[in-house]
Amino acid sequence: MIGHKDLHAFVKNIFLKIGCPEDDAVLGADVLIAAELRGINSHGVLRLPNYVALWEAKRINANPNIKIVHETPSTAVVDGDSGLGLVVAPKAMEIAIEKAKTAGTGWVAVKNSNHYGIAGYHAMKALEHDMIGMAMTNANSLVAPTFSKDRLLGTNPIAVTVPAKEEPPFVADFATTVIARGKLEVLHKKGEPAPEGFVQDKNGKPSTDPNILTEGGAILPLGGDRLHSSHKGYCLGAIVDIFSALLPGANFGPFVPPSVPYLDVPKNQPGEGTGHFFGAMRIDAFMPADEFKSKMDLWIKTMRSAKPIDGEEKVLIPGDPERESEKIKEKEGIPVLDKVYQNLKNLAEKYKVELPVNQ
Amino acid sequence: MIGHKDLHAFVKNIFLKIGCPEDDAVLGADVLIAAELRGINSHGVLRLPNYVALWEAKRINANPNIKIVHETPSTAVVDGDSGLGLVVAPKAMEIAIEKAKTAGTGWVAVKNSNHYGIAGYHAMKALEHDMIGMAMTNANSLVAPTFSKDRLLGTNPIAVTVPAKEEPPFVADFATTVIARGKLEVLHKKGEPAPEGFVQDKNGKPSTDPNILTEGGAILPLGGDRLHSSHKGYCLGAIVDIFSALLPGANFGPFVPPSVPYLDVPKNQPGEGTGHFFGAMRIDAFMPADEFKSKMDLWIKTMRSAKPIDGEEKVLIPGDPERESEKIKEKEGIPVLDKVYQNLKNLAEKYKVELPVNQ
Repeated sequence: MIGHKDLHAFVKNIFLKIGCPEDDAVLGADVLIAAELRGINSHGVLRLPNYVALWEAKRINANPNIKIVHETPSTAVVDGDSGLGLVVAPKAMEIAIEKAKTAGTGWVAVKNSNHYGIAGYHAMKALEHDMIGMAMTNANSLVAPTFSKDRLLGTNPIAVTVPAKEEPPFVADFATTVIARGKLEVLHKKGEPAPEGFVQDKNGKPSTDPNILTEGGAILPLGGDRLHSSHKGYCLGAIVDIFSALLPGANFGPFVPPSVPYLDVPKNQPGEGTGHFFGAMRIDAFMPADEFKSKMDLWIKTMRSAKPIDGEEKVLIPGDPERESEKIKEKEGIPVLDKVYQNLKNLAEKYKVELPVNQ
Repeated sequence: MIGHKDLHAFVKNIFLKIGCPEDDAVLGADVLIAAELRGINSHGVLRLPNYVALWEAKRINANPNIKIVHETPSTAVVDGDSGLGLVVAPKAMEIAIEKAKTAGTGWVAVKNSNHYGIAGYHAMKALEHDMIGMAMTNANSLVAPTFSKDRLLGTNPIAVTVPAKEEPPFVADFATTVIARGKLEVLHKKGEPAPEGFVQDKNGKPSTDPNILTEGGAILPLGGDRLHSSHKGYCLGAIVDIFSALLPGANFGPFVPPSVPYLDVPKNQPGEGTGHFFGAMRIDAFMPADEFKSKMDLWIKTMRSAKPIDGEEKVLIPGDPERESEKIKEKEGIPVLDKVYQNLKNLAEKYKVELPVNQ
């Protein structure tokens, strides 16, 4: 267990060591620690050694010139200049929010970026401005479209956030697949099989091997099989890919660069880097924000007051589990797995940064 | 089988008889016949007797004053004045397209509307302007959120359309549930059980009874059960509900008025009518349209060239099956089931409109 402030300082110091400006180092640490606090540790400090290795391999630019390359009143295309996605994304989201202030809504497509952490962090930035927030990103291809043996799409997450008044905000943040890759890794490490409907083997046959991705297998789109509407999950992953890559001119589908250093960048790329897509909609571009937020309270209360199925405690609102996690971890600290801690320790030694004790 | 032009004329004449202006009658017929041609007959002429009965019950206004009640450069709220959704929706989509011409994008939320037919029809209107189109609507509640016994959301569809150059456009149009209600009705009529993972009974237990909705059962969100990420389908249905109802001030979740005359309008409604949400994004608000469309061709070719799983013919692009259906039905005519034809015949006699022969 490490206090979140201590862990934040460590991450910031590593980013400083690789040459990030102070503000960017803080921002990158903000995003990773937010993932840890919210219980999404697959997108937390576990990823730090990868980011550093990608920088060492000159696939990440620690001091990027992030700039708008095209715009209209409600849109912009941002070139991330190969920066850390953790830094490029919040800056692009800020532009979407600024656009929304004058045009009612703002939509920003980003090229030339990298892995941006949790989508929810970026989409939540809209909430403090009484706006609805959206964030999407494509990712390297691990997912097979319906009927395909080949992996042609990433787990391509979508986050949508909506402010409420007395109630906490609605925060949806999910991969457009049956499961996230991280869950497969956990099952594999535990020596447990994957439940049916999670993955297929290299021939497209159903599999329960949680390690099947290393043998040409693929994660299934949300829905699982055609009978249960996997084509809808395929549509969702495709929409995220098209918005994130084709609108800004980033790489799509199988051409997205992997966010790990041990996998090569695909050849003959049709675009630049990884792509993201952000949106901000001012509530009062539609109706008075106060009235909307009261209605949102009623919406949330209506869902919460549903009769739960026997054995289940209650019906949740998107964002509830992550808020619960935050409350606990802000107080008790962030649990860091031994294997992850060892990797951070190697990084700390290499870059001469003090690592807090894991207790 | 009835030729699509003859069937269109019949629908138009019925709409004229209930008092729709000529242009609106044509528009309403356009939307219903488009559904038939695209093979989505659950949203075709089958619905016509319901629309008329709702008008008879004074729940639909045949001559509405559809108007913008609030706007910013990129947004508008439209009051549908209880009009046919088939007429309100295309007019709202037109406003989104007009907004996009100057602001880069246009986003229109609609209250006080009714069932709007197939979402894809409306979203496809953006294509001829080199825009990405979006359409969503909420619907009366038949879907249980994850862990809920109660039905609190509609099947809440999403449509997204993207233009390509040589290739046909990408047209995704899908309910955010495992299956559409229409499929359950077909299974029930055939006397066949529903596959596992489609529905639950009134206690939230898995069921294979295709008629379970009449006994307090519910359709499951996309994903099916919690293990296979039904919470993501719940998130999607919730997002559609919030955008379609809370942004314009329409009814949400369990308060959405049913689109059939034999179910009463819920009491204590917090909003006005059914809600929709439309979007249009000008491609060249992000990058030159021609360049984008060439890239979209490459995206489509990449997906099409995937190796299909043994026993499957090929990997499809969203919109392929509907285009195939259109080609056949434009030539051969639209098959109308005997029971549906009988209902149309009753309508024809009541309103003294000539019904084409079903041959």
